[in-house]
Amino acid sequence: MRVAMRVGVMGAGQLGRMLALAGIPLGIRFVFFAPEPSASAQDVGDVMLGAWDDEKALTRFAESVDVVTYEFENVPASATDIVARSCAVWPPRGALMLTQDRLHEKETFQSLGIPVAPYAPVNSAEELRAAIARVGAPGILKTRRFGYDGKGQVRVDTPEAADAAWGAVGGVPLIYERVVQFTRELSVLAVRASDGTRVVYPIVENRHRHGILRCSMALAAGMDDAKRIAAEAYATALLDSLNYVGVLALELFDTDFGLVANEMAPRVHNSGHWTIEGAETSQFENHVRAVCGLPLGDCAPVGCSAMFNIIGKEPDIAHVLAIPDVHVHMYGKSERPGRKLGHITVRTRTPRELSERVAALGAITTIS
Amino acid sequence: MRVAMRVGVMGAGQLGRMLALAGIPLGIRFVFFAPEPSASAQDVGDVMLGAWDDEKALTRFAESVDVVTYEFENVPASATDIVARSCAVWPPRGALMLTQDRLHEKETFQSLGIPVAPYAPVNSAEELRAAIARVGAPGILKTRRFGYDGKGQVRVDTPEAADAAWGAVGGVPLIYERVVQFTRELSVLAVRASDGTRVVYPIVENRHRHGILRCSMALAAGMDDAKRIAAEAYATALLDSLNYVGVLALELFDTDFGLVANEMAPRVHNSGHWTIEGAETSQFENHVRAVCGLPLGDCAPVGCSAMFNIIGKEPDIAHVLAIPDVHVHMYGKSERPGRKLGHITVRTRTPRELSERVAALGAITTIS
Repeated sequence: MRVAMRVGVMGAGQLGRMLALAGIPLGIRFVFFAPEPSASAQDVGDVMLGAWDDEKALTRFAESVDVVTYEFENVPASATDIVARSCAVWPPRGALMLTQDRLHEKETFQSLGIPVAPYAPVNSAEELRAAIARVGAPGILKTRRFGYDGKGQVRVDTPEAADAAWGAVGGVPLIYERVVQFTRELSVLAVRASDGTRVVYPIVENRHRHGILRCSMALAAGMDDAKRIAAEAYATALLDSLNYVGVLALELFDTDFGLVANEMAPRVHNSGHWTIEGAETSQFENHVRAVCGLPLGDCAPVGCSAMFNIIGKEPDIAHVLAIPDVHVHMYGKSERPGRKLGHITVRTRTPRELSERVAALGAITTIS
Repeated sequence: MRVAMRVGVMGAGQLGRMLALAGIPLGIRFVFFAPEPSASAQDVGDVMLGAWDDEKALTRFAESVDVVTYEFENVPASATDIVARSCAVWPPRGALMLTQDRLHEKETFQSLGIPVAPYAPVNSAEELRAAIARVGAPGILKTRRFGYDGKGQVRVDTPEAADAAWGAVGGVPLIYERVVQFTRELSVLAVRASDGTRVVYPIVENRHRHGILRCSMALAAGMDDAKRIAAEAYATALLDSLNYVGVLALELFDTDFGLVANEMAPRVHNSGHWTIEGAETSQFENHVRAVCGLPLGDCAPVGCSAMFNIIGKEPDIAHVLAIPDVHVHMYGKSERPGRKLGHITVRTRTPRELSERVAALGAITTIS
């Protein structure tokens, strides 16, 4: 097989950018479809502008490439349906539908034996009060659709707060979930090829602030075998049940009673950025390989890695690069509060060196 | 420092492509200047078309970027001089001039105490006969300017072959060099930052066929300390004497009597492609860091690596990627006999695994 393929990406942010940077060396060219111009994507491919409901533009996009993938799960299924008339779209429709509805996602997890927090669907203030009574408090009231990075969510600490919470996010279909008491947040990334072959990356520990991922530690320290095996089983059960092709990310809570699934993403994931330097094959290359029908690469770690998001404000890159073992990835975006502008991966030979480098990085930036 | 820089590259082949792939993650954008459209470069930056003597186009190019570098040493010095009116050009003019004249190169090597093969300048058939008598045979008669990959060269086995050799390449300034009896070919890549800091990559062993590099083994096996120290000293002497900024490659013959310098290249080099996966920081990233005034990264190896050029014909990429630990880099070029279309790097944890993977690669391709 010659790989003179063209891959279409719906969306044109940093995930698309890093997919292209991983795929270009394989001889693949990239075309992005997005409603607005994107500095992230234009460095590494053609950007076709169009609205998500512009059937003509979507068809032109689909006809210009060999296969299409997407870099965010909120791309309208109606748009992927238009594209799917002209070429294959991976990950599959079922995965997209599932992640666009938190209720459907929870039900799917349960059907596959993947533990979830107690939850209930909510469509009115009355239903919310009933849900709190049944599921317990504290909990989080979330929109069923189109939430990310903590948006469309409100915490409910007591039954009395129900009306205020409904006032904040109500009016659309919601889900109420009991807050999980966890010791840390983990994620597992798994990849499935078109022939059904699967590979799984080592489990990482994620640290959030204000609902945004700040840092991923690879590997997650002190993972016992039972939890590791369970996490891998959950991810691969999802891959197989969805007849999945590409990278899938599953976020998990680590609790005293075992792992509890939070949510999944049908795409490359922020908690896998460390794999560019820290794994034998990056999540981006493996996603590209999968959607192009190529064999998957090894997910084994290379050294010890930690990934820090650069949020809102750019650090002095010259100072950052002066620290040994540091790798900088900027997304070509301008500064804006809360915006992910890039990330820094520290990869070292030993855990001790990793701690030293991270401390040095913390001394000159607000990242770690 | 914010790195919203634009780097200009004179030339638009695979070296420029890989410079951009290394620099884009640093937030740098790339503009290429070339006489012809290039599939290699257009994937990763803007290509400005113009002749090497088109002063207007060169000036427009120079004014559109913050710093300029080049990806091949035969770019006319007159062109870099035009560019240098508007912005800095690295590596420096002296390095370019030196590598454009084999006689000047040899003299510089000698002046720095770097051993070279016996040689003599040749400007006529008569001078060639005199050179053979003085330097000895067999030897190679080479054009002083614009040779690469064995072009512009003819071997002279006996004094009687002088006239035929002159007939083959004569009429331009030449140099006659005694053939060196070597056990293998090595190269050392070194980098110098604008503040004078230097880093040196491990020495690699190179295998050629028909004058074209086929394979680099990193690291070169069985390098004794004396030779390693000598090679590093030669490379850093060149860097300092030229007030160099960027990557410099020095090709060496390994002989029973020590190392003998063959030639240098004032640029990233084919024998350093293994560093993308096989070193902490790739030659491409370090070259970009250097010309942008950023601190250099570590040159230490990551695992054991071997690099194979893909020449003339593309292998079946799906078959190649099915071998573990293999990394493919295609240049976006169409097939043509003798053309470098891409390269494959095998990176493993142990030398034994490396041998196994290389054997597997050899079984399905004609590469190794």
